[in-house]
Amino acid sequence: MGVGPIHRPAEGGAVADTNRGVVYQRPGEVTVEDLDFPKLELTEQNGRKLQHGVILKVLATNICGSDQHMVRGRTTAPAGLTLGHEITGEVIELGRDVEFIKRGDLVSVPFNIACGRCRNCKERHTGVCENVNRDRPGAAYGYVDMGGWHGGQARYAVVPYADFNLLKFPADRDTVMAKLQDLAMLSDIFPTGYHGACTAGVTTGSTVYVAGAGPVGLACATACLLLGAAVVIVGDMNARRLDQARGFGCETIDLAEHADIPEQLDQILGVPEVDAAVDCVGFEARGHGPDGSAGEQPATVLNTLMDITRAAGRLGIPGLYVTGDPGAPDENAKIGQLGLRIGLGWAKSQVLTTGQCPVMTYNRQLMMAILHDRVQIARNVNATVIPLDQAPEAYAEFDLGAASKYVLDPHAVPATPN
Amino acid sequence: MGVGPIHRPAEGGAVADTNRGVVYQRPGEVTVEDLDFPKLELTEQNGRKLQHGVILKVLATNICGSDQHMVRGRTTAPAGLTLGHEITGEVIELGRDVEFIKRGDLVSVPFNIACGRCRNCKERHTGVCENVNRDRPGAAYGYVDMGGWHGGQARYAVVPYADFNLLKFPADRDTVMAKLQDLAMLSDIFPTGYHGACTAGVTTGSTVYVAGAGPVGLACATACLLLGAAVVIVGDMNARRLDQARGFGCETIDLAEHADIPEQLDQILGVPEVDAAVDCVGFEARGHGPDGSAGEQPATVLNTLMDITRAAGRLGIPGLYVTGDPGAPDENAKIGQLGLRIGLGWAKSQVLTTGQCPVMTYNRQLMMAILHDRVQIARNVNATVIPLDQAPEAYAEFDLGAASKYVLDPHAVPATPN
Amino acid sequence: MGVGPIHRPAEGGAVADTNRGVVYQRPGEVTVEDLDFPKLELTEQNGRKLQHGVILKVLATNICGSDQHMVRGRTTAPAGLTLGHEITGEVIELGRDVEFIKRGDLVSVPFNIACGRCRNCKERHTGVCENVNRDRPGAAYGYVDMGGWHGGQARYAVVPYADFNLLKFPADRDTVMAKLQDLAMLSDIFPTGYHGACTAGVTTGSTVYVAGAGPVGLACATACLLLGAAVVIVGDMNARRLDQARGFGCETIDLAEHADIPEQLDQILGVPEVDAAVDCVGFEARGHGPDGSAGEQPATVLNTLMDITRAAGRLGIPGLYVTGDPGAPDENAKIGQLGLRIGLGWAKSQVLTTGQCPVMTYNRQLMMAILHDRVQIARNVNATVIPLDQAPEAYAEFDLGAASKYVLDPHAVPATPN
Amino acid sequence: MGVGPIHRPAEGGAVADTNRGVVYQRPGEVTVEDLDFPKLELTEQNGRKLQHGVILKVLATNICGSDQHMVRGRTTAPAGLTLGHEITGEVIELGRDVEFIKRGDLVSVPFNIACGRCRNCKERHTGVCENVNRDRPGAAYGYVDMGGWHGGQARYAVVPYADFNLLKFPADRDTVMAKLQDLAMLSDIFPTGYHGACTAGVTTGSTVYVAGAGPVGLACATACLLLGAAVVIVGDMNARRLDQARGFGCETIDLAEHADIPEQLDQILGVPEVDAAVDCVGFEARGHGPDGSAGEQPATVLNTLMDITRAAGRLGIPGLYVTGDPGAPDENAKIGQLGLRIGLGWAKSQVLTTGQCPVMTYNRQLMMAILHDRVQIARNVNATVIPLDQAPEAYAEFDLGAASKYVLDPHAVPATPN
Repeated sequence: MGVGPIHRPAEGGAVADTNRGVVYQRPGEVTVEDLDFPKLELTEQNGRKLQHGVILKVLATNICGSDQHMVRGRTTAPAGLTLGHEITGEVIELGRDVEFIKRGDLVSVPFNIACGRCRNCKERHTGVCENVNRDRPGAAYGYVDMGGWHGGQARYAVVPYADFNLLKFPADRDTVMAKLQDLAMLSDIFPTGYHGACTAGVTTGSTVYVAGAGPVGLACATACLLLGAAVVIVGDMNARRLDQARGFGCETIDLAEHADIPEQLDQILGVPEVDAAVDCVGFEARGHGPDGSAGEQPATVLNTLMDITRAAGRLGIPGLYVTGDPGAPDENAKIGQLGLRIGLGWAKSQVLTTGQCPVMTYNRQLMMAILHDRVQIARNVNATVIPLDQAPEAYAEFDLGAASKYVLDPHAVPATPN
Repeated sequence: MGVGPIHRPAEGGAVADTNRGVVYQRPGEVTVEDLDFPKLELTEQNGRKLQHGVILKVLATNICGSDQHMVRGRTTAPAGLTLGHEITGEVIELGRDVEFIKRGDLVSVPFNIACGRCRNCKERHTGVCENVNRDRPGAAYGYVDMGGWHGGQARYAVVPYADFNLLKFPADRDTVMAKLQDLAMLSDIFPTGYHGACTAGVTTGSTVYVAGAGPVGLACATACLLLGAAVVIVGDMNARRLDQARGFGCETIDLAEHADIPEQLDQILGVPEVDAAVDCVGFEARGHGPDGSAGEQPATVLNTLMDITRAAGRLGIPGLYVTGDPGAPDENAKIGQLGLRIGLGWAKSQVLTTGQCPVMTYNRQLMMAILHDRVQIARNVNATVIPLDQAPEAYAEFDLGAASKYVLDPHAVPATPN
Repeated sequence: MGVGPIHRPAEGGAVADTNRGVVYQRPGEVTVEDLDFPKLELTEQNGRKLQHGVILKVLATNICGSDQHMVRGRTTAPAGLTLGHEITGEVIELGRDVEFIKRGDLVSVPFNIACGRCRNCKERHTGVCENVNRDRPGAAYGYVDMGGWHGGQARYAVVPYADFNLLKFPADRDTVMAKLQDLAMLSDIFPTGYHGACTAGVTTGSTVYVAGAGPVGLACATACLLLGAAVVIVGDMNARRLDQARGFGCETIDLAEHADIPEQLDQILGVPEVDAAVDCVGFEARGHGPDGSAGEQPATVLNTLMDITRAAGRLGIPGLYVTGDPGAPDENAKIGQLGLRIGLGWAKSQVLTTGQCPVMTYNRQLMMAILHDRVQIARNVNATVIPLDQAPEAYAEFDLGAASKYVLDPHAVPATPN
Repeated sequence: MGVGPIHRPAEGGAVADTNRGVVYQRPGEVTVEDLDFPKLELTEQNGRKLQHGVILKVLATNICGSDQHMVRGRTTAPAGLTLGHEITGEVIELGRDVEFIKRGDLVSVPFNIACGRCRNCKERHTGVCENVNRDRPGAAYGYVDMGGWHGGQARYAVVPYADFNLLKFPADRDTVMAKLQDLAMLSDIFPTGYHGACTAGVTTGSTVYVAGAGPVGLACATACLLLGAAVVIVGDMNARRLDQARGFGCETIDLAEHADIPEQLDQILGVPEVDAAVDCVGFEARGHGPDGSAGEQPATVLNTLMDITRAAGRLGIPGLYVTGDPGAPDENAKIGQLGLRIGLGWAKSQVLTTGQCPVMTYNRQLMMAILHDRVQIARNVNATVIPLDQAPEAYAEFDLGAASKYVLDPHAVPATPN
């Protein structure tokens, strides 16, 4: 990954560089625009002061499947929103109150913004911090209804509560740069997939079904293997993504060809059930089967997972379910109300764990596994580095089902000089 | 509680007494009938041998809300089914393979039948034992689709895998008899309520909402207090049952008068949310509000609980949800598919724990709390002892909303001589 | 508890009041001295800036058994050390970086000083914070070798990282003042006792042995009961303290009279073992028995607990063991090396949990239990309020075995005007 | 591994084969002797009936380091004791009460003998079953003071409570036979090492120090890697065993050369501490350092682990500590009382988990990992198959520090015809 010379702001805090980032325009359209250089305050929250924050030079920032929900027009995201919540970078400016993070630190940013002072943060539920979003617990960078924080698919980004939020890489710059594509997955999808696996109870010897072979699904499958799972079976309708999964040791079920998942499981495992299952698809799930024309069936993944998970098993549900979906196929789905076969889950004493991954719970551990070569997450999700200005094309290709995790390099050579 | 002289079978295994128990006849009708004396085999499973089992003289056997689902015709229970899965008794006959349980032992029977040898039992998931029901994991006494085991609302009952299943009371007979109504709650509702509380994360200082003030709800509220909850709020539409809850220290919300639960919580707690919530109602939930005419709304409790439980909170769901409900209000509900606001729960990172309580996980502990006077479960659920032959009246009164937990005493004086 | 009018600093931060606190002079002697008014910096750590801190007007500050180790000369505490780590107060001045805590907030201070930003704090191990003590993980107010932070047995005190460390009472001033003696136990002994109980596995129905009937032992016994323990047995050689324990429902063993603890347990429980045991004594343990002359036997409590705890049981060890004890009875003990019967514990598969309680893990929950009248901790430990200037007498009485927990009221009327 | 034709008993239960096994004679001497064919009763426990048991044809049975304690004369093992508690075999005869295990099943036997009916077994503490040893909780095959059960280093062996104890391999015979050396490690060392790792808190990304490179240490290191540890460092004084550890990805510290373990850790990790540590040595630990002449220091491993494990870290202690050691270097050690630096552990809030591994808690999972090629335990411990009659030589070589795990094949060709 070609990373240009590291930016240094001029003496006295003056910054010679300009900012530029990915902006949501309307359903189906994102552009890359020049942006103001970040400040340590948040206009969207009445000029909230962020002296506990830092400014990062962004070294890697990934496009996420959950960005697609916005870009596809399935949310109320406003035009002009800067996108991006998967951020890895170098600290170039410190707020007055920052004590432990230093200029020059290379860091991973959890996509959850968290204050580190509220009850939920103290209890490690950093995904639902009470102090960073005035509307409800939980915030993220560059996401609709998540507090108005600016996105990080940009050359520079602000991270508040930096001493709490940032994960500093304990390695020299060369090592970090050599593994930057792997480390870039620590901001979201690797912990998210791992959280899905953990909350599903995946452990040594488990048999697991992972619904979805997108980047989160592949990261979850990677996590399952790292956790010692005996067999990891990934289901999707996208043949290229399934190829990717098989490439690192998963079994796969092509749902475009096989509608009967229990039967497929039985062929692989000798029983039609798994110990644990993870939903890496979320509310934009589609019906599956040979015809491929089933259309959206937002409850289909959850109902399938209750069916194929053994009694006393658990479901991890990191896939996004929303409270409002204006583009949903029916009135109930528009308010996030789905027809779940809860009677089936109940008869099997299943446990369902929902919600955003609290990234901070896992990212240090996963970083250690990356730095010590215990896992190849970038390879497994097919990390593909592109310049920032190619983000629109990457959004489009990802939406078409590319088996890639796009990593934007906002300072790539040849980029604007920095 | 008047208990007659203890039965002793004649030498050589001949038994002088006759059996008699509660039998389901048709929707709305149960009768008390003479029955064959139990044998250590199970005709309903091809004469399966039960030499690991014992025969109990039943000292107390309770009517449960889940029996009502059958009696109301909301299941496919066959006519002639002997009812009853809440059994406390004295061991009078031992199968050949029983090693540790002795004749004369006074015991509680977990309503879950479990083998103690399968993977699920070894992992403490005795509610979904793999070896006691040929159709699916999990079995119970006297219940439809739960393996064909005979009910215990009778003078005598068989308990298989007795060394594993039975909880022997470590106290002398007088002590046991003095606390029999409390101990009788160990077979189901006390552990079930406690399981709901535990899986909802109830602990020292919690604020809890318990949906339903029937016996399981009251047992759950008792468990919450025993677990150290700061505030326990019970909601129901039955004023007498709410009186019962207030009688031992709960706050209450009368849903017949107040439809807006968050507002009521706010008045009690100063916030419109609780730390934890437990569904002690299940699928026969009704809409609530002043009009009282909302009819059945099987998802209403679950949706309410997701609404009122704080972010990162947990829902315990011991209330029964079924895979088939011929009397349900709509086609989806008939197969146990309910419209759940899963998007709401997801946004709050909630965890939902469903299923039968694995009674054995809790009953020893709860017995200790009873024997050492740390809890008054019989008082709290208003245990009411009646003779076996009054079971039909008790079923009817319970169905009408009596604030009582009926305990049948099959050997009450004056009963048939034994 | 008579609390004088609330101090308000003059405009512009000027403070009209003077400070005064308890100072360690030499073995056996503490005095109350005038002190400088606190500043938001720490001279003892090279003038470390504490803009994240606040200044408290101390409303209650307790004498702790661990203070006695210093005062008895069993540590290397330097003359001039201001004592006190159990602090409850009102926020009167805010550092520049404090965002959520407000002037006028009534708060409890965990005795562990923690930054809220390091790995250990993020993982809830606030007792071993990595950023507050240059010598090793973990710090406390007014304690030898714990970072040089000033003690809180004073009229005013500084709390760093206030947004993270402080527990704000969510109640009006009158309610707080009415329960101030209970709430004052949240800074140390109630969470410490609760931690001991939790790490010993105490839960509903447990039988527990608590070694030591000092304030921590009594707080632990209280916690055990709050956790639902069936039987709590407290052992000590101090008859008055045992009386105190019996007063709120504990069983007791007077070790001055009965050397054979298993036999005593057998009389109480019917078995010579307990499910769980907690060491609330620590390294200054004495041999016990009728002669009373056994002298110090620093390993005796731990060895006893391994003996009387059942197989697969757990030991909670909140009692202090040190790495250096110049007054120890032998060379090994001087470096904290004790003769433990680890072979005995191993044969029983026991788990030993050592260390300071991470107060923040528990204090919010316990506060809720206090505010909702679920526990009477002040009564149980016999909280006794005295003016600050009587601290020397209280230290002396406590050392002689008074069955009291002394709570200093630094602004008591008649005190110097404020 | 050459396994001869499978024995089939003659019709009617008559057995044509004879038994033969390894017998302890005196310190330093074991022999292989003809033995009576096993019966389903236990003379050593007054002829206790074992109709719940089965007779196995032993296919693999390993020599364990804990056998060496007996053979070295460090226990009170009586002459004539048949040795061996690591048993893998084929079921050839069923007791009358066995219901789920079938003749011909290929099974692993947990070395802990457990009833599956007592409180400890129900709570998954099968290492301290209350019903299999009259002297204290816990039993094992062929071990001193563990209930008098016969050892399994023999052609045939009895397993009581077979439905509970046995782990049936869910694979065809060819697959089992192909992986028999791996599966043979499920009876003890693989679960034991895994238990040590789990109880030390080893998880994804951990840094771990494993004390001891014998078979349990190597199994523990294997488990750590399977659990996702970032760095596993094995320390020992035996260069060959350290070579073995390096062969599958561990770092090593040769304690014969380097006495300063923190310094060595610092060179490997950049910090002188690890997240977690496991004692796979036990009470026969020796002092280490360049001189190699330090002699036995039974507490040295535990004290080292407290020193090098970070604050809030945990110690797993599967290495054996005993309650009586007649050959110990001093009077305290003779009763299992060791000089532990508990003050050091306390200052770091460490948790110590002692005791036998409850094999049943882990063996199914680890079997799945083996069957699905997720781990190469036989390779990692250098499993070495030898005929039963060579057991004496193997004991001697193992005692001299061979870097091998000896697997006895009691029916090897050319053996006595079967």
